[in-house]
Amino acid sequence: MKKRVAVLRGDGIGKEVTDAATAVLESIGRRFHHEFEWVYGLLGGEAIDQAGQPLPDETIKICEASDAILLGAVGGPAWDNNPSHLRPERGLLQIRKHFELSVNLRPVQAFKSLLAVSPLKEEVAEGVDMMIVRELTGGLYFGEPSFHDEEKAVDSLVYTREEIERVVIHAFELAKLRRNKVASVDKANVLESSKLWRKVVEEVALKYPEVEYEHMLVDAAAMKLITYPAAFDVIVTENMFGDILSDEASVITGSLGMLPSASLRSDGFGMYEPVHGSAPDIAGQNKANPLGAILSAAMMLRSSLGMIEEAKAVEEAVETVLENGYCTTEFINIGRNVLSTTEMTEKIVAEI
Amino acid sequence: MKKRVAVLRGDGIGKEVTDAATAVLESIGRRFHHEFEWVYGLLGGEAIDQAGQPLPDETIKICEASDAILLGAVGGPAWDNNPSHLRPERGLLQIRKHFELSVNLRPVQAFKSLLAVSPLKEEVAEGVDMMIVRELTGGLYFGEPSFHDEEKAVDSLVYTREEIERVVIHAFELAKLRRNKVASVDKANVLESSKLWRKVVEEVALKYPEVEYEHMLVDAAAMKLITYPAAFDVIVTENMFGDILSDEASVITGSLGMLPSASLRSDGFGMYEPVHGSAPDIAGQNKANPLGAILSAAMMLRSSLGMIEEAKAVEEAVETVLENGYCTTEFINIGRNVLSTTEMTEKIVAEI
Ligand SMILES: CC(C)[C@H](C(=O)O)[C@@H](O)C(=O)O
Ligand SMILES: CC(C)[C@H](C(=O)O)[C@@H](O)C(=O)O
Repeated sequence: MKKRVAVLRGDGIGKEVTDAATAVLESIGRRFHHEFEWVYGLLGGEAIDQAGQPLPDETIKICEASDAILLGAVGGPAWDNNPSHLRPERGLLQIRKHFELSVNLRPVQAFKSLLAVSPLKEEVAEGVDMMIVRELTGGLYFGEPSFHDEEKAVDSLVYTREEIERVVIHAFELAKLRRNKVASVDKANVLESSKLWRKVVEEVALKYPEVEYEHMLVDAAAMKLITYPAAFDVIVTENMFGDILSDEASVITGSLGMLPSASLRSDGFGMYEPVHGSAPDIAGQNKANPLGAILSAAMMLRSSLGMIEEAKAVEEAVETVLENGYCTTEFINIGRNVLSTTEMTEKIVAEI
Repeated sequence: MKKRVAVLRGDGIGKEVTDAATAVLESIGRRFHHEFEWVYGLLGGEAIDQAGQPLPDETIKICEASDAILLGAVGGPAWDNNPSHLRPERGLLQIRKHFELSVNLRPVQAFKSLLAVSPLKEEVAEGVDMMIVRELTGGLYFGEPSFHDEEKAVDSLVYTREEIERVVIHAFELAKLRRNKVASVDKANVLESSKLWRKVVEEVALKYPEVEYEHMLVDAAAMKLITYPAAFDVIVTENMFGDILSDEASVITGSLGMLPSASLRSDGFGMYEPVHGSAPDIAGQNKANPLGAILSAAMMLRSSLGMIEEAKAVEEAVETVLENGYCTTEFINIGRNVLSTTEMTEKIVAEI
């Protein structure tokens, strides 16, 4: 197959890890006889500097003409004092909205060989294998009215049935491919939007009798993610709760640097990026962990490019390299073989 | 001194732990020559059953005629399917709003002797000593419009400068009595309300040059509470973020059952309750940990009744009893002397 991928390397270590991901995809191309065409575009801080806006029109065009988007990370202290329309993360919000990337997937998995770096006791973090499904284009992030002046501020948490249904169905479909369990997280004892959310979940659930589901309040979920994270299979929730809970979940296994994510449109088009940020402190030093970006590329193969075997090949290569005792600098204290970004990438390529 | 306290025992273990708290206060009265008058009122599930509403008028009157409110816990499966105006937690929201209890304080402290039960590695949980200051009567909880129908739902996150100022000032004042550090948590890269929040924090901070403060995004805070909780001194945040983060924080030390809370009006009047819920599964079995309620009573002595020495006496008694190796059933696995609710209460009383 021939596929065109928009590559938005972004800022800081975003560049290094995206290069790692495309290198790995090249090796997948060689092994499985695919051809990838990379089209590079600007997003975030560098886009502000070079094109005067965080999401330039040129980037939108590039993405529209592609089969998927691969993203590094955006942001950095250089732009921290910019006005809000010139902030790197603004570009992220705009690209999600423009391409209707309404379903955000964040798998969190404990790698047994790395449990020593988890802030949780090993027996608590062990066996964690969850998929957080976050609604990404609704709720407080985009609701109107939304303004502030010197005396007052208003944000609006707005959801339509359709927006809720879309992401909830996605969650139940995923559960069928996993352990058949969904925890729907809301705040139905306080929020009207959560009451509609709960209703829709119950309706959708009727169509999935094989999937066991429960409603969980967001405060209870924030606790259980720490006390008993291995109990979760699929978590589905609205945009703001998903932002908080997915970041909370991202640190429980200690392997933030290897977590991937996908942001999907209903037709399968999507944007793929590691969960970590642009890490300006180590940018350009060939120290970043490329596995988050590489596993994001695997998600892209599976979800947007229809290359299931290829996705598995990438994931297996990552597992093998970890099992062989290799890691990047953040794991230096647990007595493993520390590699640079490019060395790690070469190890993965060699496995493929 | 003579003080009148409204006692709302509530549901489930709320009753047992409130009885423990009043027993301890009686012993404080004997030692320090105070007289406490207890006036009992209904709140929550029992109030619904006996008075047809979660916060009966009679209860409001009792509280209005008192110097402070001591609360157990409300709720239970018996009322889970009630319509929302007949839910126990509705009473909680109403009483907060009615008495303008706009500042919620939740101290989280690691007890060294109990670190073994923390889900976090002991070295991560050790030394945790933070105060979460949550705005309690604004934001998404009370903003209008707020409705849902079959197709759409809206909640409104509304804040005035005054509401923000009040809670932020409280947080900076507390920081002065502690380690002079404030982390203000918001989502200023997305929310308008957070932008006003940040502005107000910066203005207030000018008046506290000795207090070091930082802005932190809510998703970053959710991570740091797990990776480096001991770094926090005072955290201040809006209602919904505070709900999520304070529950997240409540489990990191493993001692949820002993965490107290206070909900304060600006004139010092307040409501005091343990952080734990009504725990219907162990209600009436004399197994509940009364220390959360007892430490809440200590907060009441300090913040609403002006009895600082007395508050310290309670806190020291709790520490001594813990140091002597006693605990309640939830700690049964770490080889300590397990006491019932009433036995634990007697131990505390004996120390006073
Ligand atoms: C940068 C920010 C706007 C964004 C969000 O809140 O969605 C980020 O935290 C994320 O989770 O991708
Ligand atoms: C019961 C519920 C309405 C309440 C809240 O969300 O404020 C509770 O979770 C709390 O934190 O006191």
